[in-house]
Amino acid sequence: MAEMIQLDHPGSDVADAEAFLLEALQILLDEGVRKGTDATQKVCEWKEPEELRELLGLELRDHGESRQSLLRRCRLVLRYSVKTGHPRFFNQLFSGLDLFALTGRFITETLNTSQATYEIAPVFVLMEEVLLAKLREMVGWSDGDGIFAPGGRWSPRSWRRRSRGRKPSGTTVLGAFDPLGAIADICQRHNLWLHVDAAWGGSALLSGKHRHLLDGIERADSVAWNPHKMLTVGQQCSAFLLRDSSGLLQRCHGTGATYLFQRDKFYDVTYDTGDKTPQCGRRVDCLKLWLLWKAIGTQGLARRVERAFAFTRYLAEEMKRRDGFRLVLEPEFINLCFWFVPPSLRGREDDPQYWSKLGKVAPVIKERMMKKGSMLVGYQPHGPHVNFFRQVVTNPVVTRADLDFFLDEIERLGEDLGGTPHPPPHPEPSSDP
Amino acid sequence: MAEMIQLDHPGSDVADAEAFLLEALQILLDEGVRKGTDATQKVCEWKEPEELRELLGLELRDHGESRQSLLRRCRLVLRYSVKTGHPRFFNQLFSGLDLFALTGRFITETLNTSQATYEIAPVFVLMEEVLLAKLREMVGWSDGDGIFAPGGRWSPRSWRRRSRGRKPSGTTVLGAFDPLGAIADICQRHNLWLHVDAAWGGSALLSGKHRHLLDGIERADSVAWNPHKMLTVGQQCSAFLLRDSSGLLQRCHGTGATYLFQRDKFYDVTYDTGDKTPQCGRRVDCLKLWLLWKAIGTQGLARRVERAFAFTRYLAEEMKRRDGFRLVLEPEFINLCFWFVPPSLRGREDDPQYWSKLGKVAPVIKERMMKKGSMLVGYQPHGPHVNFFRQVVTNPVVTRADLDFFLDEIERLGEDLGGTPHPPPHPEPSSDP
Repeated sequence: MAEMIQLDHPGSDVADAEAFLLEALQILLDEGVRKGTDATQKVCEWKEPEELRELLGLELRDHGESRQSLLRRCRLVLRYSVKTGHPRFFNQLFSGLDLFALTGRFITETLNTSQATYEIAPVFVLMEEVLLAKLREMVGWSDGDGIFAPGGRWSPRSWRRRSRGRKPSGTTVLGAFDPLGAIADICQRHNLWLHVDAAWGGSALLSGKHRHLLDGIERADSVAWNPHKMLTVGQQCSAFLLRDSSGLLQRCHGTGATYLFQRDKFYDVTYDTGDKTPQCGRRVDCLKLWLLWKAIGTQGLARRVERAFAFTRYLAEEMKRRDGFRLVLEPEFINLCFWFVPPSLRGREDDPQYWSKLGKVAPVIKERMMKKGSMLVGYQPHGPHVNFFRQVVTNPVVTRADLDFFLDEIERLGEDLGGTPHPPPHPEPSSDP
Repeated sequence: MAEMIQLDHPGSDVADAEAFLLEALQILLDEGVRKGTDATQKVCEWKEPEELRELLGLELRDHGESRQSLLRRCRLVLRYSVKTGHPRFFNQLFSGLDLFALTGRFITETLNTSQATYEIAPVFVLMEEVLLAKLREMVGWSDGDGIFAPGGRWSPRSWRRRSRGRKPSGTTVLGAFDPLGAIADICQRHNLWLHVDAAWGGSALLSGKHRHLLDGIERADSVAWNPHKMLTVGQQCSAFLLRDSSGLLQRCHGTGATYLFQRDKFYDVTYDTGDKTPQCGRRVDCLKLWLLWKAIGTQGLARRVERAFAFTRYLAEEMKRRDGFRLVLEPEFINLCFWFVPPSLRGREDDPQYWSKLGKVAPVIKERMMKKGSMLVGYQPHGPHVNFFRQVVTNPVVTRADLDFFLDEIERLGEDLGGTPHPPPHPEPSSDP
């Protein structure tokens, strides 16, 4: 009986929670949106894991905490997280914090539905349909099918099989495009399915000036394209597009599970698109892209793409003018792959240890920039090449001043390297002096 | 040269976008948070696809739109979407809009990072570790491994193979638990891997009163548990837990891709947990659960679980007291599966058409509730059973009054059914009179 009585009142204090949300939103706007995109602030406040664990107080306890304590925790989470929207964050293929897309993401989170059926996601079922048709139009198809679904990467097995020399040359690291027309010829001759992984490069289709890089893509059978990368809409937004319009997705992935997809509904159940994917609950990934597209139009998106290309060309030219930079290859897309050669190594290509010494430069520069918090850029080895930096600029708020800073900062952080012994590759964690 | 000059200024108007965000947040709080959880508002404003398409103006154009037009669109998206946080939304296993978790999701979206490496997600790498350890502790393991990753459902092939009679009895529809101890005995004897799919039922582990339903789970090798369902943290939050602590995830899924996971970093790269999953970019799914846990503690979560059980018992007892309700089975968990038997069918079990007539009742009641917008609950057939409703109450703001309304509303919507001819299973779309 006592149990019955407790059910007369809500099980959570909604007014208190709403007050918390409003205060937290202020902190979020301040720390996350404004400071997080302010070039005068750090990209990240580096802490070693042990110290950070201490600062955050992560333990989960039996009892809840006060609103003030929770707000302090939100502030700490924001403070010690990396600001991927910062104009000097270049570490990932995604960067930048577009506030139109962010609005779409906030609405998505609040509505918290699943992109499965028309009855629980009427707006998003129709919106996804329109967006997929638009993306297919960009590919060059007037018809077809598709779905927004989280992407993956090559499995270890297929990765190794590729690396035995049968790998297409287009890669995410170098930003190189395969000759799609020639490949389509071969596929046609041998009746092979042609899938184009345009997860990264697909956004070039938006620019009349650059879409020729993907000439022939219209002959593909399927295309993967991730607008969350170059178009700054936020993780994740990955489209899988199909030229086929015979219902292949449904036939491949559909379980026909009647507990999820009833057939005897009063509306047209072809709108229940959730059975096209093996996922059960599928997040709504279309609103953020749709809202951004509505806000700036196809031309606005194209301008962002062209701006990214222009930045890459600017950086490549600047690097050729400066002494210490060496391009791995001329950029074809917006990936700028380069080594920084410290003064002590310049003109020493004959030194048998030149490449091994050069390969140790990027990790040290990276360590220094992270501890300083001044910027963030990725490095990796690739095939025969020792560690090099890969610079990619997709954030629309970046200006030339940020790129000049980038070049100057690499020079500052790396000027003493190359000659003296380097720290071992896996040093003990040390605190920032 | 013209290109160089354009790079001197940001490529987007940040002040304008921020003003938009602030206005949109007001709309979101009003329409999404307040009205979306207000029992006096509709759960959904039903529109046929054609009409809704017209209302939303979904087309994507070359040029962007004004801020006012965009705000109007945000309002329409909210208005015509289903309110899954509404106290009368019972259609999915997830429901409810917890504002602590929502705060965590807003922060997650703003930081927009990938749960891949310590260098881009230091806070979340440590947070995921603590949460996974806590979930494992609930399972009964002092050690192990795990990952938050989007879930799936059975593939058509394995689905069919199961359905040949080798399927465990525990199901998401009925909310039934398998005898884990007995199954563990068999697995032990035959040296089989025991995976427990506790995606839905796992949250019962939080309650000292109900965790006995999962007795034996500590003997599993792996467990799937989705806190986004019963714990109201928002899609998605799916934990895969492993008893093994020898690095199995890394060995199974790791690509060792050096463009993603460099080994020569200055910090301890065992914190770069992204290589444990086949995903490339992995969303941060831990903050929302962590923040809720901090806010209400393990005891607060347990209270929510116990409240859900109490609601189910309340509904089951009420149904037995009322004439028109017939339980499919006594609820073991919080799934309440029932038929509504309209007056014209009561006591007519001898009618050879009884079950076929009864199976047509739920779709019509569902159509009526959707067009009215009064509530939303799912139905499905299952095995030998014709269409029945499955009622699940996880939303912590639900009170007994909402459940009384639910029962009364089912009676109101279904009282004239069962005798007269029914609409065909796939009628032409018709407008709400």
